[in-house]
Amino acid sequence: MRYAILVSYDGTDFCGWQVQPNKRTVQSVLEQALSKRLSQEIRLTASGRTDAGVHAYGQVCHFDAQTSIPAKKIADSVNPSLPSDVKILKSAQADDSFDANRTAKKKTYRYTFYRSERDDPMYERYGVRLPFVDLEKMKEGAALLVGEHDFKAFCASGSSVKTTVRTIYDASFTQEGNLLVFRITGNGFLYNMVRTLVGELVDIGRGRLTCADLESSFRTGSRQGIGKTMPARGLALECVNYDTLNW
Amino acid sequence: MRYAILVSYDGTDFCGWQVQPNKRTVQSVLEQALSKRLSQEIRLTASGRTDAGVHAYGQVCHFDAQTSIPAKKIADSVNPSLPSDVKILKSAQADDSFDANRTAKKKTYRYTFYRSERDDPMYERYGVRLPFVDLEKMKEGAALLVGEHDFKAFCASGSSVKTTVRTIYDASFTQEGNLLVFRITGNGFLYNMVRTLVGELVDIGRGRLTCADLESSFRTGSRQGIGKTMPARGLALECVNYDTLNW
Repeated sequence: MRYAILVSYDGTDFCGWQVQPNKRTVQSVLEQALSKRLSQEIRLTASGRTDAGVHAYGQVCHFDAQTSIPAKKIADSVNPSLPSDVKILKSAQADDSFDANRTAKKKTYRYTFYRSERDDPMYERYGVRLPFVDLEKMKEGAALLVGEHDFKAFCASGSSVKTTVRTIYDASFTQEGNLLVFRITGNGFLYNMVRTLVGELVDIGRGRLTCADLESSFRTGSRQGIGKTMPARGLALECVNYDTLNW
Repeated sequence: MRYAILVSYDGTDFCGWQVQPNKRTVQSVLEQALSKRLSQEIRLTASGRTDAGVHAYGQVCHFDAQTSIPAKKIADSVNPSLPSDVKILKSAQADDSFDANRTAKKKTYRYTFYRSERDDPMYERYGVRLPFVDLEKMKEGAALLVGEHDFKAFCASGSSVKTTVRTIYDASFTQEGNLLVFRITGNGFLYNMVRTLVGELVDIGRGRLTCADLESSFRTGSRQGIGKTMPARGLALECVNYDTLNW
């Protein structure tokens, strides 16, 4: 039987999603707790990896298991065995054809900023201080991301993917209390793509780059002169959408 | 010379504001860093104490010192000696008559909730999960807090104060992204008053208490049948207002 789980984690104290020898990763902590509770070896497939320090409000994973625990009860059954920085928010039965990675239709990431003259302890865990910027220019830059583009310039070097073309459905800024949240929704993201795009937008806001530079990077695919990769702690996987998944 | 500082701290790993032997408190960590940097013993007076686990976006303190460091530069000068969970956001010279505690005119506290079926690691550090409640009823209850009332019923037993009458200028809920923030502004707050009032509102939202019960507690001053004290981690001192302070 195939199951899907919706998982939230504070990435601060994890070495990212993926299992690595002798490292505390989200996948290994979850697999251990599930394997223990379901008395069988559980292997998880996530919608995608998240890097060390990146958070998730709604990571989606699937696994196969034989258990008498009703699907919806798996969350409450496993959560007591999980540390406080990773929890299962929902669990459900999934079709055999459901694959958390391959059948994902859309993903939304958020990057959290706060505006302050100095680093602020109350925002530093999940956010990054935004220096004096022209927010309107950043919004113009964000609007340019929407559509189908070749994001080769915004992909960490060395990664091997079939195509670097991705479609972005939405990219926008929202003020939420004292936080400025950048959200980007697309059909998929390359390695480090969100953090590099956010760095590009920040550089546009600071006047170091222009919207024309961004458009030029789409055309040339060159990593020369693009924005720096932003810190992991500001980034969180917010949600993943599927056609067939009903929580 | 008198100085004022605006301080932000993540209260999670502090045993509250006030100096206590062999405990890590915000006051002791700040006093040590200031004393070291200004090469003299510094004693801080805060707008008020905060309990263990309570956060602050804008605690205000004053101290007296002789230093050649310009007042506005004290923040950047001391911050490198401070741990990442407490920082000085602003520093300024203050009048001799300024007293962070006695001349405070208004204080605003916030209590952060999030709504979810299960505990969520991304909100648990600074917030508390709000169960299924009638938010409209909670808003009605909050409106009743505004004005001058005797908050004797909402003051931790054993505290000695001249009067338990306080004036509340505003008490309201705001949705900020996925967070539901309760803010309360008043001329002063009794020990545990905000956490107890928030507990009262939650019980009103859950139908365990009514707005009439809240009004009755104002009249009788009895702690019988009032809401429970809410967890410290949801509470933060947001700002303190003075007539004479110019950052």
